[in-house]
Amino acid sequence: MIKPSIPKGTRDFGPVVVRKRNYIFQTIRDTFEVFGFQPLETPSMENLSTLTGKYGEEGDKLIFKILDNGEIYERAQQAKDSRELASLISEKALRYDLTIPFARYVVMNQHELALPFKRYQMQPVWRGDRPAKGRYREFYQCDADVVGSNSLLNETELLLIYDTVFTKLGMHGYELRINNRKILAALAELVGKPEMMTDITISIDKLDKIGMEGVKGELQERGLTDADIAIIENFLQISGDNASVLQQLRELFANSATGQKGIEELDFILHAGYASYNTTPVLDLTLARGLNYYTGLIVEVKAPASVKMGSIGGGGRYDDLTGLFGLPGISGVGISFGVDRIYDVMEELQLFPDAAQQSTRVLFLNLGEACARKAFELMMQLRAKGIAAELFHENAKMDKQMKYANKRGIPYVAIMGESELQENVISVKNLVNGQQEKISAAALIDVDFQ
Amino acid sequence: MIKPSIPKGTRDFGPVVVRKRNYIFQTIRDTFEVFGFQPLETPSMENLSTLTGKYGEEGDKLIFKILDNGEIYERAQQAKDSRELASLISEKALRYDLTIPFARYVVMNQHELALPFKRYQMQPVWRGDRPAKGRYREFYQCDADVVGSNSLLNETELLLIYDTVFTKLGMHGYELRINNRKILAALAELVGKPEMMTDITISIDKLDKIGMEGVKGELQERGLTDADIAIIENFLQISGDNASVLQQLRELFANSATGQKGIEELDFILHAGYASYNTTPVLDLTLARGLNYYTGLIVEVKAPASVKMGSIGGGGRYDDLTGLFGLPGISGVGISFGVDRIYDVMEELQLFPDAAQQSTRVLFLNLGEACARKAFELMMQLRAKGIAAELFHENAKMDKQMKYANKRGIPYVAIMGESELQENVISVKNLVNGQQEKISAAALIDVDFQ
Repeated sequence: MIKPSIPKGTRDFGPVVVRKRNYIFQTIRDTFEVFGFQPLETPSMENLSTLTGKYGEEGDKLIFKILDNGEIYERAQQAKDSRELASLISEKALRYDLTIPFARYVVMNQHELALPFKRYQMQPVWRGDRPAKGRYREFYQCDADVVGSNSLLNETELLLIYDTVFTKLGMHGYELRINNRKILAALAELVGKPEMMTDITISIDKLDKIGMEGVKGELQERGLTDADIAIIENFLQISGDNASVLQQLRELFANSATGQKGIEELDFILHAGYASYNTTPVLDLTLARGLNYYTGLIVEVKAPASVKMGSIGGGGRYDDLTGLFGLPGISGVGISFGVDRIYDVMEELQLFPDAAQQSTRVLFLNLGEACARKAFELMMQLRAKGIAAELFHENAKMDKQMKYANKRGIPYVAIMGESELQENVISVKNLVNGQQEKISAAALIDVDFQ
Repeated sequence: MIKPSIPKGTRDFGPVVVRKRNYIFQTIRDTFEVFGFQPLETPSMENLSTLTGKYGEEGDKLIFKILDNGEIYERAQQAKDSRELASLISEKALRYDLTIPFARYVVMNQHELALPFKRYQMQPVWRGDRPAKGRYREFYQCDADVVGSNSLLNETELLLIYDTVFTKLGMHGYELRINNRKILAALAELVGKPEMMTDITISIDKLDKIGMEGVKGELQERGLTDADIAIIENFLQISGDNASVLQQLRELFANSATGQKGIEELDFILHAGYASYNTTPVLDLTLARGLNYYTGLIVEVKAPASVKMGSIGGGGRYDDLTGLFGLPGISGVGISFGVDRIYDVMEELQLFPDAAQQSTRVLFLNLGEACARKAFELMMQLRAKGIAAELFHENAKMDKQMKYANKRGIPYVAIMGESELQENVISVKNLVNGQQEKISAAALIDVDFQ
């Protein structure tokens, strides 16, 4: 018999972890709902043709393909390499993110949807990445997107959702960094090489990690001249508070329509007087974000500086996502929460409240048939009131029953023994402080088991 | 451009459906929790070796296998048929049910678990069945199981969970049918052919569909003699209320230790004075249930007779599930809810309460920048109170904004126009009854948007 195991990069979530994860999910879900977002769920499997080519060449390799059921042998014979073989015997694949399935859904349901369509989606995705700390092959994404509206109010609302969720989670010191792709496009224009925008943004995105000299070296390797690099360095040296950064950008991009548009958008989001943030978003001109479909605001959430952790959320505006599926001209903007990393941060900072870890509140001891029957009756009254309660499954030694309560972390024990049964009372012991009291059986329902 | 679609047998769940499904999930989850069951989540992917051989030959064919990433071409060359090919290029597969992953989890975590371990699990499973009405390739299972206890209290509790959930869902007229595998084993003994227990139970399981003559015909085909069949027919003719059926069984199996044990177990579950059911379970001697690992109680839930629908739940006791993974001697008992079918029944009987279908309660109209800013401020106050609210994304024509409210089914509209802004009031219109009133802006927070 082989010792059972689970696939690399996947995890079992036991009771304690599920409860804490659900606390995060519930906080995010409640916030999405209160902001008027609507839930969507798409299948775990998509047609391979829906996913292929949407995540770049590297992404395509990481998609988990599902083997067709039935006869595949004959078909497989025509293959000349691994890639061809896969395409001959597999027509479905596991969801790789929530954005592409959402775009596919919008296109399929375009005639029924009330626009703007504000949807949220909280489901697992699968990627064949090499597993590492904080990187799994199955993990959850929690996304909120708005499609069918160009209004910057949506950007404001999405930033407020981040603000609300992280405030509720008690994650003080987290940072909301924003930038605008139009600013980065204007920079490439200023350099005189708009076609090199991606090269430029990829390099400056690394400023945090490799420093100014590193960035300059990389820009040179990518074919930019010293004069080009001087312009970029000048741009990267802009600093100060948000208002001051915006003012410097206004001057730098005085002659760029694209730049002015980007500045105007950032100004609206930060200063239009709609939102009052608990944590004000910070303009970060080095923020680029990898996905090429962003065209306006980009945003990234950083964990509090005391925790070593990459981004715990991000998003932005994309102008033409559904165009991939034949419905052009629908703009969208969205954000995503990295729940697995948020979990790790919460754990490290000990932010989970006790309520997120509660299971059974009361264990009724099993002290023989007649006593247990009475205990069962009282237990059902507590349950009807919503209090999680259990009766020990058998008339075992007191010691064994108490051990179970301790191992499970159950805070109260209710004792219905022979003498209690006679007197129509019940003893309640608080295992946290050791106090025990005897009350009338009828009064049990009024005990606050907090 | 190919019109996008989703794989056969899978479904998108739009907002209305997700909310109703969540209502069912939440009702079941709350009940599991209050009964002291603990949540578990296992990965969508299991090692193929964990799943293969656990669901019979037919089941093996329906398991969705995941293609290994990377180079598969060379390995594939050694295959001589489809089955071999699949095993050479696939080492993972999608979860087929929740029971086997649970058993695998228990074995892997046997030293940490407090026994009895009462777990619940609500996750999708995948099967390559031919799609049909009510049969999907991706569907949810909601299971509760207890392992590590032989006590019949567990059976009682699980039946009470069914009783509680279906009562809460308002599903009047549903039936809880129970039987005991030991009774069926005793019948096979009585016939003198204990080795034919499976043949006998498979046949009598069909009594509903093919009638007594059909069953007799099938028994004959399976090699039972006329004398054997007479004994079985006699057994199947036992009828009456639970107490009367038990009495007749006592006489029939007077000399069978197995039979007496089965009767004793059923008697305990029905009459031990622990449970008080809203809907009393009904003894059904023809109930057999397919899965061979059951050894004691078996249970099946039937939808109200007015709805044409197969079983909407089922379960039973199994004596040695974890033995499959090298940990023998751990008894278990469990039940399962068929959420997709329960959804269909609830829909047909119109049992979903309004609360299960609520989304945004209030739409604030967008009547220009200054008005919208004030509206936004008031909206954020409602949201902080937990009331789902939206501000229309742009200053569009009133008509367009009202259309959005109607299409989304939003019951209230809040109007902050120029005159309201001047007077520091706000107009609230109930779209259901058409009534509109003007209140002070400060009073909005106290309005009950139900």
